[in-house]
Amino acid sequence: MTYCVALKLDRGLVFAADTRTNAGLDNISTYKKLHIWEKEGDRVFTLLSAGNLAVTQAVISLLSEHIHSAGEGRPTLMTVETMFQAARLLGSAIREVRAIDGESLGSNADSFQVTFILGGQIKGEEPRLFQIYSAGNFIEVCEDTPFLQIGEHKYGKPILDRVTRSDMRLGEAAKMVLLSFDSTLRSNLSVGMPIDLLLYNKDSFSADRQLRIEKNNPYFQKLSLGWSDALRDAFADMDELDV
Amino acid sequence: MTYCVALKLDRGLVFAADTRTNAGLDNISTYKKLHIWEKEGDRVFTLLSAGNLAVTQAVISLLSEHIHSAGEGRPTLMTVETMFQAARLLGSAIREVRAIDGESLGSNADSFQVTFILGGQIKGEEPRLFQIYSAGNFIEVCEDTPFLQIGEHKYGKPILDRVTRSDMRLGEAAKMVLLSFDSTLRSNLSVGMPIDLLLYNKDSFSADRQLRIEKNNPYFQKLSLGWSDALRDAFADMDELDV
Repeated sequence: MTYCVALKLDRGLVFAADTRTNAGLDNISTYKKLHIWEKEGDRVFTLLSAGNLAVTQAVISLLSEHIHSAGEGRPTLMTVETMFQAARLLGSAIREVRAIDGESLGSNADSFQVTFILGGQIKGEEPRLFQIYSAGNFIEVCEDTPFLQIGEHKYGKPILDRVTRSDMRLGEAAKMVLLSFDSTLRSNLSVGMPIDLLLYNKDSFSADRQLRIEKNNPYFQKLSLGWSDALRDAFADMDELDV
Repeated sequence: MTYCVALKLDRGLVFAADTRTNAGLDNISTYKKLHIWEKEGDRVFTLLSAGNLAVTQAVISLLSEHIHSAGEGRPTLMTVETMFQAARLLGSAIREVRAIDGESLGSNADSFQVTFILGGQIKGEEPRLFQIYSAGNFIEVCEDTPFLQIGEHKYGKPILDRVTRSDMRLGEAAKMVLLSFDSTLRSNLSVGMPIDLLLYNKDSFSADRQLRIEKNNPYFQKLSLGWSDALRDAFADMDELDV
């Protein structure tokens, strides 16, 4: 499993991903699931991935390789003009991997299950955020629900539902996202620390607000404990049911 | 889907179940999923059910029919001496239904998926709480995790994890359970109001603390709104992440 969240807010984008991968409970590892492509001052893309690691790695490698072999005239992340075109590139890369590996994986229906979140900004456009499916098709986030989740989304959704506002500061959204991770980490062993975070300021065209939150991160520990205490206090303040 | 929770606390047991059943998104109904058998002063059983409605209804009908045809000398809920024996009776009833309907349902692997929570008290024993699986086998709740959930358990688990204490008052536990339902109802359409509640006081051997919480229940509405406000306030009070 995996847990990744991204938000599109008035001030920019926030991305977070755990780093645990597993092939069974007895075989867990740490892999980065938050990937960035950047052309300082012109464009920034962030990709979050969930699902079969061989497939997601192949998709990411293809996108990178295409950038370096751009001489063939085909569009790449560095040449597309809109985020919509970038999402279509990602969809094509998924289909390319399926064309190569899909048949061999066919006997296991789950084996080609991948989901991506792609967000970023290209000069001339607003920041945009997409969720891309195994089939290579995708949806774009909307104002009514300005966040996307992939992987183990359920434990961490109640706080997002209750607290998300489009006018949040990015640091405030990061705090919320970490609380959403805290709830998930408590309940699903296949989601694990550290957590990779990126805060993207609208029109900055720079991915310099990156952070990896390790298990012993003092801010995260304080947040986790403080939130439990606050919930217990809030709970104690409410009237009991009288039957 | 379904959402049911039960807790075993120092002061007794708490049970809650939603009432939505569905055969597809376009065919939803209201069915009671909290069932009680009672012999005032001697024993009380409460059963919560999730899964295929035809199967859970058949199991419940069998348990009731056996009580009324007890002349054959076979043990029934009204004659067993321990809650462990009651859980085994339930397991046998599940296997009996499987023996009758299982083969015909066999083509659909999901069709015999049922899960039950059985709790109660028989004179001479402490209150006890079990979760019974489709195969008829079961587990008993333990002190480390004094609650059981069946159906859509994920959205409502974080609050149970953070707030549950064995020394809670039953009304306090009911408040927590309703907040757990509130989180679930917001995110899963296949869990729906009203919610059936039973608070069982240890050694009362009576199921008189029953309540059905309808959608417009003023306590539930106040709780839901108050909790959202309290969470937002608690959230606002915590330090932001500084990247």
